[in-house]
Amino acid sequence: MRGIYTDLAAELRELSPDIKGVVEEKDADGEIEITRIGILDPSAARRIGKAMGRYVTLDARALSERPLDLFEAVEKRLATELAELLRRNGGKSTVLIVGLGNREVTPDSLGPRVVEGILVTRHVKQFVPEAFDFEAPGVCAIAPGVLGVTGVETMDIVKGVVERVHPDCIITIDALASRRAARISTTIQLTDAGISPGSGVGNQRAELSRESLGVPVLAIGVPLVVRAATIMTDTLSLMANETGLHADEEKLKQLAQSVCEKQLDDMIVTPKDIDAIVSDMAGIIANAVNAALFGKNLERVRSLIS
Amino acid sequence: MRGIYTDLAAELRELSPDIKGVVEEKDADGEIEITRIGILDPSAARRIGKAMGRYVTLDARALSERPLDLFEAVEKRLATELAELLRRNGGKSTVLIVGLGNREVTPDSLGPRVVEGILVTRHVKQFVPEAFDFEAPGVCAIAPGVLGVTGVETMDIVKGVVERVHPDCIITIDALASRRAARISTTIQLTDAGISPGSGVGNQRAELSRESLGVPVLAIGVPLVVRAATIMTDTLSLMANETGLHADEEKLKQLAQSVCEKQLDDMIVTPKDIDAIVSDMAGIIANAVNAALFGKNLERVRSLIS
Amino acid sequence: MRGIYTDLAAELRELSPDIKGVVEEKDADGEIEITRIGILDPSAARRIGKAMGRYVTLDARALSERPLDLFEAVEKRLATELAELLRRNGGKSTVLIVGLGNREVTPDSLGPRVVEGILVTRHVKQFVPEAFDFEAPGVCAIAPGVLGVTGVETMDIVKGVVERVHPDCIITIDALASRRAARISTTIQLTDAGISPGSGVGNQRAELSRESLGVPVLAIGVPLVVRAATIMTDTLSLMANETGLHADEEKLKQLAQSVCEKQLDDMIVTPKDIDAIVSDMAGIIANAVNAALFGKNLERVRSLIS
Amino acid sequence: MRGIYTDLAAELRELSPDIKGVVEEKDADGEIEITRIGILDPSAARRIGKAMGRYVTLDARALSERPLDLFEAVEKRLATELAELLRRNGGKSTVLIVGLGNREVTPDSLGPRVVEGILVTRHVKQFVPEAFDFEAPGVCAIAPGVLGVTGVETMDIVKGVVERVHPDCIITIDALASRRAARISTTIQLTDAGISPGSGVGNQRAELSRESLGVPVLAIGVPLVVRAATIMTDTLSLMANETGLHADEEKLKQLAQSVCEKQLDDMIVTPKDIDAIVSDMAGIIANAVNAALFGKNLERVRSLIS
Repeated sequence: MRGIYTDLAAELRELSPDIKGVVEEKDADGEIEITRIGILDPSAARRIGKAMGRYVTLDARALSERPLDLFEAVEKRLATELAELLRRNGGKSTVLIVGLGNREVTPDSLGPRVVEGILVTRHVKQFVPEAFDFEAPGVCAIAPGVLGVTGVETMDIVKGVVERVHPDCIITIDALASRRAARISTTIQLTDAGISPGSGVGNQRAELSRESLGVPVLAIGVPLVVRAATIMTDTLSLMANETGLHADEEKLKQLAQSVCEKQLDDMIVTPKDIDAIVSDMAGIIANAVNAALFGKNLERVRSLIS
Repeated sequence: MRGIYTDLAAELRELSPDIKGVVEEKDADGEIEITRIGILDPSAARRIGKAMGRYVTLDARALSERPLDLFEAVEKRLATELAELLRRNGGKSTVLIVGLGNREVTPDSLGPRVVEGILVTRHVKQFVPEAFDFEAPGVCAIAPGVLGVTGVETMDIVKGVVERVHPDCIITIDALASRRAARISTTIQLTDAGISPGSGVGNQRAELSRESLGVPVLAIGVPLVVRAATIMTDTLSLMANETGLHADEEKLKQLAQSVCEKQLDDMIVTPKDIDAIVSDMAGIIANAVNAALFGKNLERVRSLIS
Repeated sequence: MRGIYTDLAAELRELSPDIKGVVEEKDADGEIEITRIGILDPSAARRIGKAMGRYVTLDARALSERPLDLFEAVEKRLATELAELLRRNGGKSTVLIVGLGNREVTPDSLGPRVVEGILVTRHVKQFVPEAFDFEAPGVCAIAPGVLGVTGVETMDIVKGVVERVHPDCIITIDALASRRAARISTTIQLTDAGISPGSGVGNQRAELSRESLGVPVLAIGVPLVVRAATIMTDTLSLMANETGLHADEEKLKQLAQSVCEKQLDDMIVTPKDIDAIVSDMAGIIANAVNAALFGKNLERVRSLIS
Repeated sequence: MRGIYTDLAAELRELSPDIKGVVEEKDADGEIEITRIGILDPSAARRIGKAMGRYVTLDARALSERPLDLFEAVEKRLATELAELLRRNGGKSTVLIVGLGNREVTPDSLGPRVVEGILVTRHVKQFVPEAFDFEAPGVCAIAPGVLGVTGVETMDIVKGVVERVHPDCIITIDALASRRAARISTTIQLTDAGISPGSGVGNQRAELSRESLGVPVLAIGVPLVVRAATIMTDTLSLMANETGLHADEEKLKQLAQSVCEKQLDDMIVTPKDIDAIVSDMAGIIANAVNAALFGKNLERVRSLIS
């Protein structure tokens, strides 16, 4: 699986459709295709390269044209799926939102931008409890930055907060890598398996998961970059298949790899309007998280804390 | 001391020039006036309304015209004063920079913006120690956000990081309140007394100090707002003095106070070009902190980590 | 009228309620108070200090708490009023939106930010006319910057564009000055009298109006700053009234003026969360302008051009 | 030349090294390689795909590591080359800077960001001429936006300003496309041939040139994007050469082209830290332009207008 770089369970599943212990279900909601993948046991997890758990992928190709009504439909669907995962993973009296990524790097700024849109209530419930004459979780939200900018591992910052805040549940938001440029801006992945980027691709960032943090970790991610080298390698495979150049395929791939490494090293492939896409996606996710957490009390909460 | 709202030791000193246990020294460096105030004992601290420690205030009126050479002179002076405070407060093999304030509120975004300019080395020293064949502190830097946005007390986030990173010293950067609009953009305060906004003015943010965190806390601050109510009250006092309206002074003040509270509640007074001022000041402070920490190895560090 | 600085017809009207040739009507729409002022002749215009024309002021105090449903109600009302003014002022087959102000100065960035949210169609209608199988105006939108940043008078940039684009109508958006801090974030003024800041207050920026540009100029404005000196003077008048210090009133005012000029020169009074307020208001206005221009075809236009 | 997409004269020259009427000279300044290309006659211009004129390319591979001293060296060199081009192209008593591109799209925001750093003097010279007791050009600077955002052709906005400002010279700044990812952040092109993106690559934006505007147009550009399809095609050629698959080369290329068109349509390849690169480059160019225009009076101008 060298050369493959994706954070999407649905793409890994396509590459290895026959792994035992992985179940898959297709569903749809208007223009939104829903794929539910369950990775059921550790052996399946090892082979597919993702941690055990439920993965829900929402795909809406038409999102790339930014129609407001589809934005709303995706928001609603994501809120519903998230509420369901929250229900399955126990209580939500205190929830910690963690916006991962680097605010100063556009395609990596999704997490911090979502955090800006979250309705934060924990401090109000703590200091002015009488303000809440209705049920509402205590929500807090941090954007811990990235190791290269802070010099501190994300895990260390999150763990410190978890020890003081004692959340029942953590929801992380992060930009993902995909194999296909077309996924950018049109796909959202939701999982209760935490974030474990290290499992298949050699990224050393420590995983944020129920194991490492002691509470359920739900993760929302959106593919926003494709590594240039990944696109290249994939396209070459496709070409080799179509030309029937099977004899040379291996050689071609190796060549491609070496050329890519030299030329494309740290390069990413991204749509020209990535700034607008990140902004739209951050809005959709923040709205969906707020809706999933506060339900019918959403507007009361909003007017309370603004 | 009701109605007074300032974070500057030098302004508090002017209001109470005769408190015992407070020492003051004036100095100058070209166009920069330097005031060194020492608050020597707890009783003096209580009476003046600031924690015990050294306070160095740099004043450079001409800064408001943004001449590049004065920027550099202030950078250099601040670096020298900070290096001296670091020396007095023990080691600096690991230093944690904490940028306080709210990135999304311009006059409050100084701290987070300084953090963006800090040269962060801790992770490189940890993961690639052989890269450093010269002495350099391990520097890390976080911007924990503010309670109203994160729902988590700043103190809780900082303490969590301190427990994992074990710094020898913390340097905080924050926007301050002043009594005088003219201070905005022209004054920098440096202290080894930590940040204790609660001491005189009823702000409940927990103090970041050697007492609360177990390591020395140096604080760099720049006045960037004046509360509208403060300016009003001060101006009225001045007027009462000049008109000789002594009989009515008290009445006037009370009236002013009540008018201000109704009309000016959460209002701040700020120069029109505050965006540019914050940006300039963030640059000066980041450069000064980098220079104080890395000294003659500054450029080697910069090229190592970029 | 020295010391008064406001761009709002409704505030000028309050100061001079008895001027002949000025008509006023109150109206309401849910939580939105509507004031319609007509300045009917040149003599009235001169005396009140605003150009002849219709002025519609929407006031919604509750906006300061940012409830989403009131945002929507204000959007709708503004769209309706703007559509009515467009109808009265002739055709709208080509419309030029002009976002006035300085993008880099938060309270002055309203205009440029609204421009970012406008659905621009002129170039599509010109180059791909077949894309529009329904009625829609050709909309274009510029943010010409401010004299201090470009070195070119706004009027010169706008006039150059008008000569090439030949719009039927211009809609400008700008931040306004008010006399009262409470107006910030809660008031929108709409007028067909153009922007003529020079009329009452000595600002030399050339007016953008039907006279100077040859086409109707509608102007949308939101009070986002109060000059510090204005607040001071107003509060003093109030105090003098309440204390009955009539003998000293004149003297007090003069004193206040001189103190303000020294201390508060270029200072503005603004709420702490001005960044968020400008962002909200820019969204409301952009949505309202889009709705007024495209009516029931709004969503078709949006999906066509994104 | 299908599939080739570059704005760099030096890259076009490499592709067609034998065209008559093109002269080339290599030079160096420390770590900076300088290539001077002259396109001498219309026939050469047509064949190479760039307008007649001088093209100076500065290449500094080490720039990608962001050493401050190299930043300064490049600034100085660019200022010298620009001053020389200004001298050859006649007077500079009034100069118009035009920052091309879309501020909201990071890799396309170079031009607007440079404009923010330009020292603008025209309005001061016009309204307060006595402030200048020394020689200095009247400089003005606009960022006209892009057709897709304004609905107005850049040419129309610039022409309107030129007719009112009557500059002796125009300097445009723009992001360029290159064929090689390695060029991003390390190359600057300077030319007196204006901007004529339409000449070889089917881009319909009207050219800004002495012919179209009536005054000399100098253009500064930095490669900040590589079209994904370009990288793909180039890499395939390379591979075909290395494998000796000459028989299949044409077929491979066609296939690559069709795959790219489907998958990579509007995608660009860009380094992950493009936000920081654009910011650095904007600083270098603004400083160089200011230095070329104001020479030894630079600091006097800066303090005059800030």
